[in-house]
Amino acid sequence: MSSSLKARVFITLKNGVLDPQGKAIGHALNGLGFGSVGEVRQGKVIDLELSGSDAEKAKTELKAMCEKLLANTVIEKYEIELK
Amino acid sequence: MSSSLKARVFITLKNGVLDPQGKAIGHALNGLGFGSVGEVRQGKVIDLELSGSDAEKAKTELKAMCEKLLANTVIEKYEIELK
Repeated sequence: MSSSLKARVFITLKNGVLDPQGKAIGHALNGLGFGSVGEVRQGKVIDLELSGSDAEKAKTELKAMCEKLLANTVIEKYEIELK
Repeated sequence: MSSSLKARVFITLKNGVLDPQGKAIGHALNGLGFGSVGEVRQGKVIDLELSGSDAEKAKTELKAMCEKLLANTVIEKYEIELK
């Protein structure tokens, strides 16, 4: 079997950017009786399978993917996690 | 300051459930020259702030939130992470 890496990328709205979807989830949870819920923010998670085993190279590539396609860096930030 | 917990919930499609959005991202990345990208799956991440400091209670509550509102457990699975 050829080697491969699994990566998880989180795309979330930057602090200060309004998140109406998160707010709606928060309100719905409060309405369902979950009174302890405060602020809620929603984002995306993308799980990728990458061929190769060079973690450093993979991280560089993932950063480029986020900048070019996955995140809108004007309003979104990203975190990369290699497993 | 009153105590609060931060939680992160991942909602992802179950294995075997078709994920056209993930497929589209994978194709786009391949087209942009990222040839090492294999399978891609997309999901949601929800960051919540919970009042209180009892981690066990928070986990039980988060599980109930996922079952009742956040995830469609027919096709989606969820993971809970407390920070």
